[in-house]
Amino acid sequence: MACLKVHGSVVSTAALRVITCLNEKDLEFEFVPINMGAGEHKKEPFISLNPFGQVPAFEDGDLKLFESRAITKYIAYEYAGKGTQLIYPDPKKMAILGVWMEVEAHQFDPAASKLIFELVVKPLMLGLTSDGAVVEEYEGKLAKVLDVYEARLAESKYLGGDCFTLADLHHLSTINYLMGTQAKKLFESRPHVSAWCADILARPAWTKALAMQKKP
Amino acid sequence: MACLKVHGSVVSTAALRVITCLNEKDLEFEFVPINMGAGEHKKEPFISLNPFGQVPAFEDGDLKLFESRAITKYIAYEYAGKGTQLIYPDPKKMAILGVWMEVEAHQFDPAASKLIFELVVKPLMLGLTSDGAVVEEYEGKLAKVLDVYEARLAESKYLGGDCFTLADLHHLSTINYLMGTQAKKLFESRPHVSAWCADILARPAWTKALAMQKKP
Ligand SMILES: N[C@@H](CCC(=O)N[C@@H](CS)C(=O)NCC(=O)O)C(=O)O
Ligand SMILES: N[C@@H](CCC(=O)N[C@@H](CS)C(=O)NCC(=O)O)C(=O)O
Repeated sequence: MACLKVHGSVVSTAALRVITCLNEKDLEFEFVPINMGAGEHKKEPFISLNPFGQVPAFEDGDLKLFESRAITKYIAYEYAGKGTQLIYPDPKKMAILGVWMEVEAHQFDPAASKLIFELVVKPLMLGLTSDGAVVEEYEGKLAKVLDVYEARLAESKYLGGDCFTLADLHHLSTINYLMGTQAKKLFESRPHVSAWCADILARPAWTKALAMQKKP
Repeated sequence: MACLKVHGSVVSTAALRVITCLNEKDLEFEFVPINMGAGEHKKEPFISLNPFGQVPAFEDGDLKLFESRAITKYIAYEYAGKGTQLIYPDPKKMAILGVWMEVEAHQFDPAASKLIFELVVKPLMLGLTSDGAVVEEYEGKLAKVLDVYEARLAESKYLGGDCFTLADLHHLSTINYLMGTQAKKLFESRPHVSAWCADILARPAWTKALAMQKKP
């Protein structure tokens, strides 16, 4: 009986973020699939786990959490002694890592999520056409963010510092979707960004998370 | 000579978030005004402090940070012994507080910021007309978020738990702008949300931050 539970869907970028974090920490967990097509995320019992009706939700014994980045931070601190160290014990290093976690959340993710909606969700899941003007606008925004990443990664191996941390991990599921779209060129045309993507996408914790999509 | 410096503008919601945090912690700081009208935030020397060209940026000795919520978290941990405790030492309580900080960032702020742009920035700063359809759409989104807040605040005095913390503090500057607009009704029509707003807006640390707008 696992006491850690992830409620979600294996196509959800936010759920994959939490699953990858658990894999990095070598933690066993129970995955509770939520059928989003049937609207299970908007009904009880899920809505009691996350009143916003979004996946994932997480349980550690009687502690119930939602919001993917709050969950990964909890796991990284609570299970600091297990698996990959995803945070820094040093407060100044942690402060810099904190900056790059916020950059992911406030600069990268809004552009990346909009592009995933236009280039993946609309054509492949909803049977709708992408809006070319929106794609162009958000590719422009993402390009500007990646220019900053290129400069950062020229002087630091990972975004948050010398080691792979939550700041990198939080990008994996969104980057993986974008790599299957025309937005791939934005990553490939920047050498440091491109090397960083190849490095983090090759992590066994990510491969293992992605493999859950292939299970029956 | 203060070793803490905030570079920003006193009309910026993000800069006010950091200033309020410093006030809660009873910390002295130097405020370095950035003339955004003259585009100073997009040029050197500011751009070396924040490559995204947004205010605020922060210095604590030779540590340089940006992203308002990364700065407030650093201050709350680094100066834990001073002023108001804005985080919880208990890891499970801190995890719940972490959820509500993410809720502010990912659920509340996107709707609030869009409404501030339409209802404050466009009419009062750019001389443009608000787009009624956008206002209606985002008032609807904000209303849904505030429904969740109403339920949360019926069972918890503050968003993150029993005490005023970063989860509440992060809302102050955006709520204050919205209270000067038609969106005020969304807060006033929900009794627990309304009482919470009155409580947190009355904090001396916030009054002191806001008073900086009136200085010559
Ligand atoms: N900020 C949330 C976002 C969660 C989220 O948007 N989940 C998506 C799937 S990736 C979802 O449940 N969408 C359904 C909806 O918003 O109604 C987090 O990081 O957990
Ligand atoms: N996520 C950033 C947002 C900062 C931000 O948007 N600052 C605004 C003023 S409130 C700004 O500098 N805008 C100018 C721009 O984006 O070009 C933070 O929390 O610090």
